[in-house]
Amino acid sequence: MPDPRFFRREKPKSLGELAALTGAAISQGSDPALLIEDVAPLDQAGAGTISFLDNVKYKDQFAATKAAACIIASPMAEHAPKGISLLLTEYPYKTYARIAQSFYPDFPQKKPATVKANNLHVHPDANVGKGCVLEHNVSIAAGAEIGDGCWIGANAVVGENVVIGRECRVGANTVISHSLIGDHVRIYPGCCIGQDGFGFAIDPAGHIKVPQLGRVIIEDSVEIGANTTIDRGSGPDTVVGQGTWIDNLVQIGHNVKIGKGCVIVSQVGISGSTVVEDYVMMAGQAGIAGHLHIGKGARIGAKAGVMRDVPAGEQQLGSPAIPARQFMRQVAAISRLVEKDRK
Amino acid sequence: MPDPRFFRREKPKSLGELAALTGAAISQGSDPALLIEDVAPLDQAGAGTISFLDNVKYKDQFAATKAAACIIASPMAEHAPKGISLLLTEYPYKTYARIAQSFYPDFPQKKPATVKANNLHVHPDANVGKGCVLEHNVSIAAGAEIGDGCWIGANAVVGENVVIGRECRVGANTVISHSLIGDHVRIYPGCCIGQDGFGFAIDPAGHIKVPQLGRVIIEDSVEIGANTTIDRGSGPDTVVGQGTWIDNLVQIGHNVKIGKGCVIVSQVGISGSTVVEDYVMMAGQAGIAGHLHIGKGARIGAKAGVMRDVPAGEQQLGSPAIPARQFMRQVAAISRLVEKDRK
Amino acid sequence: MPDPRFFRREKPKSLGELAALTGAAISQGSDPALLIEDVAPLDQAGAGTISFLDNVKYKDQFAATKAAACIIASPMAEHAPKGISLLLTEYPYKTYARIAQSFYPDFPQKKPATVKANNLHVHPDANVGKGCVLEHNVSIAAGAEIGDGCWIGANAVVGENVVIGRECRVGANTVISHSLIGDHVRIYPGCCIGQDGFGFAIDPAGHIKVPQLGRVIIEDSVEIGANTTIDRGSGPDTVVGQGTWIDNLVQIGHNVKIGKGCVIVSQVGISGSTVVEDYVMMAGQAGIAGHLHIGKGARIGAKAGVMRDVPAGEQQLGSPAIPARQFMRQVAAISRLVEKDRK
Repeated sequence: MPDPRFFRREKPKSLGELAALTGAAISQGSDPALLIEDVAPLDQAGAGTISFLDNVKYKDQFAATKAAACIIASPMAEHAPKGISLLLTEYPYKTYARIAQSFYPDFPQKKPATVKANNLHVHPDANVGKGCVLEHNVSIAAGAEIGDGCWIGANAVVGENVVIGRECRVGANTVISHSLIGDHVRIYPGCCIGQDGFGFAIDPAGHIKVPQLGRVIIEDSVEIGANTTIDRGSGPDTVVGQGTWIDNLVQIGHNVKIGKGCVIVSQVGISGSTVVEDYVMMAGQAGIAGHLHIGKGARIGAKAGVMRDVPAGEQQLGSPAIPARQFMRQVAAISRLVEKDRK
Repeated sequence: MPDPRFFRREKPKSLGELAALTGAAISQGSDPALLIEDVAPLDQAGAGTISFLDNVKYKDQFAATKAAACIIASPMAEHAPKGISLLLTEYPYKTYARIAQSFYPDFPQKKPATVKANNLHVHPDANVGKGCVLEHNVSIAAGAEIGDGCWIGANAVVGENVVIGRECRVGANTVISHSLIGDHVRIYPGCCIGQDGFGFAIDPAGHIKVPQLGRVIIEDSVEIGANTTIDRGSGPDTVVGQGTWIDNLVQIGHNVKIGKGCVIVSQVGISGSTVVEDYVMMAGQAGIAGHLHIGKGARIGAKAGVMRDVPAGEQQLGSPAIPARQFMRQVAAISRLVEKDRK
Repeated sequence: MPDPRFFRREKPKSLGELAALTGAAISQGSDPALLIEDVAPLDQAGAGTISFLDNVKYKDQFAATKAAACIIASPMAEHAPKGISLLLTEYPYKTYARIAQSFYPDFPQKKPATVKANNLHVHPDANVGKGCVLEHNVSIAAGAEIGDGCWIGANAVVGENVVIGRECRVGANTVISHSLIGDHVRIYPGCCIGQDGFGFAIDPAGHIKVPQLGRVIIEDSVEIGANTTIDRGSGPDTVVGQGTWIDNLVQIGHNVKIGKGCVIVSQVGISGSTVVEDYVMMAGQAGIAGHLHIGKGARIGAKAGVMRDVPAGEQQLGSPAIPARQFMRQVAAISRLVEKDRK
């Protein structure tokens, strides 16, 4: 059970309510009135809890689970333990996510109403929307606009004329300048967004700074992980598209354009002026050189070093990155060649 | 045009003024009295703006530009569109940088005069120079010395006896201790500078900390990107030489010595006690092992893993890093060998 | 000599006191009453200082040192310069660490007694132990428990119901939520600990967040470097075992379990749900994929990309990581093959 010191659970719901909430079907013989109190993994679930099976690898855990109910795809029903109730859906993990959210509603549904913040520095020419929660020591500069229902963490710094949409969350100790941010954006603690890009003319007598005259544009429903840095553009803007999720400690260089629905895992670095189309996935510690084009739906492997454009839909691995199949073949072949060479 | 919410442009200047400012020559037939209002890229430039051509790749954009004036090297003049005025120079990008700076003067020329900071914690034994701007919640400990004309961002923490020179900028939420910092240094938000290095005697019963008794020395005109970390020395100092530029999320270990005019791109890590001579360039995500010597002007490629000393002027790629030509040959040869092996 | 602006040295101690403190033996002919004032490296040591020799590479420096005393292993005694006093021990570096600590006692022995912090935000329902030092602008939320003798840096943010043990240090601008932290833990500045893990169901219509219902558990005597991020578990907890040392800019994903006494160097990333057994060492910029098992005492090389389980005690290098010997053989063989291919 989630630690009640940190997580406040909502009231129990009937299986019928959960089905209605998610569009899943109640299996024949299951009782829509069955009361569900909590979510839990298959191997820890017990009376009153609902679990899910998304990966066939865990079929045995499913067969042995003590959960009162389980979310599964229909073909798995034959492995169900006796007496369990089933919610049937094509997408068990998504359905689980929605049900878990209903028991543990996250911000913005659940802001810390008890905070009475002190030492707020909201400039009289800034505009803070209705129902916002500002934690201690927040600074909001002149001309900034914060939409309704935002939650701004302690010590966050919102610079002059920055615009933040509705129901956004800005983490503690995050610093934002020169940015226009959409609705439902969640920025974790420790981020730096909108500072100058790394732009200068190299000169042995002292590199000469090139003024960075663009902005950072964050579209709706973006997530930005802890201690991530996003530089503003040099003239063009740096853009993160709608619904893209960015993990911790990621670097986004100036003028980068990221499309919609991308997933950018921890410690990735994207160099200046690269364009990343929609639905691209980049695994941990991948690095993308500057001025490249990464096609729609491309998948960049962990630690890949991308030095050339990547076609839409292609999976790449290695450094310099090459198509995944070629990489796997290369790794196997090298291993064989080295064995031969030894003999 | 740069967003006026974030960038305040200076008054128009004549072509003659811009030539005088930068030492560029006005081409025959151009009017020194031509009034220039703004800078812009070739493809977005229009009446009243000046652009530049530095890369022959953009020759066609130059031929088609609507800019009133353009900064170019003399040999490109033959491609000039009709009616454009030209500033001629051997170094168009540097000249552009200087002209852009004149339209958009950066700090320290343009401090936020309107800030009236609250909740400042300046110890009575600290010394803050004339004309400094301190933003909200700044902490400056006993014995710290801040030179004239500095700009210290919100929530920045300057530790006991830290010295910061003249006209420096310290970003919001940056933490500095055990450091001596020169003039004209610009530290971005979220940096941690001067904390203990990662020094200890390994022991299964509990690693034993070795006191870290050195400092961080930052020479004049250094730039340090957002969320970068620089540990203080263990006895010797950690040093960053004059005019070196460091990008975001870089790690500099204890006792590292970096020379003058280096360029260290995002997410690079330099391990303890390594010496980096002047004018070295390290591309993104490169990693340098400890106790190495990187010769003057060496160029370390993106994601390179340097395990041995690098001679002056050498370019290296790969992990373990090898000379660039050898690496390129290796990549090509492996590809060929794998093809042969397949057959 | 360490800069007295930053380091306050304790009173001189006799060689006999230092021997008693560390269990080292005083060599025949050395005077136990010899007064030692400071520690120093061999090549900088002079009258009144004690140094150490741990690496035979520095034998010549030892033979030439001007130190009054030196910590060595017995077999090195024959190289001692005339007139030096010797402390004999099997572990010179550990003995040096303890002696250096006695001259430069670190926190918690030496808290900044002079700090009179302003603008503290300690919730009336929080509990702060005896002898704690809180610096300016600290926020401690409702229900948080801070043990005796802790030192909480400026602007640190301790979330609701977080528990921190005795004699811990929390660096400036660090943010902690959803965490239970043991005794003698040292967290450097700029860390983010306890935020949501990167968990969601991928959906082109908008990724669906999966509530992250676990915690971060930090056991006793852990060190966590600057700007490091540790996400809380998704249901299980994220755990860092006793005495593990973590460097700067490291990413620890949700549900990761790290054992005791591990060493995790800067910019390492450990993906979600991976289990790391006791005494594992991971060098800089290594990356570990999710859901893996890294056996006890394994050693992961710098920049290694670990894609499979690693057996106990094994050293791995490369990406994808393979056993170190195999990697070294492969690097050499490729070099040979490429030469052959060229001819």
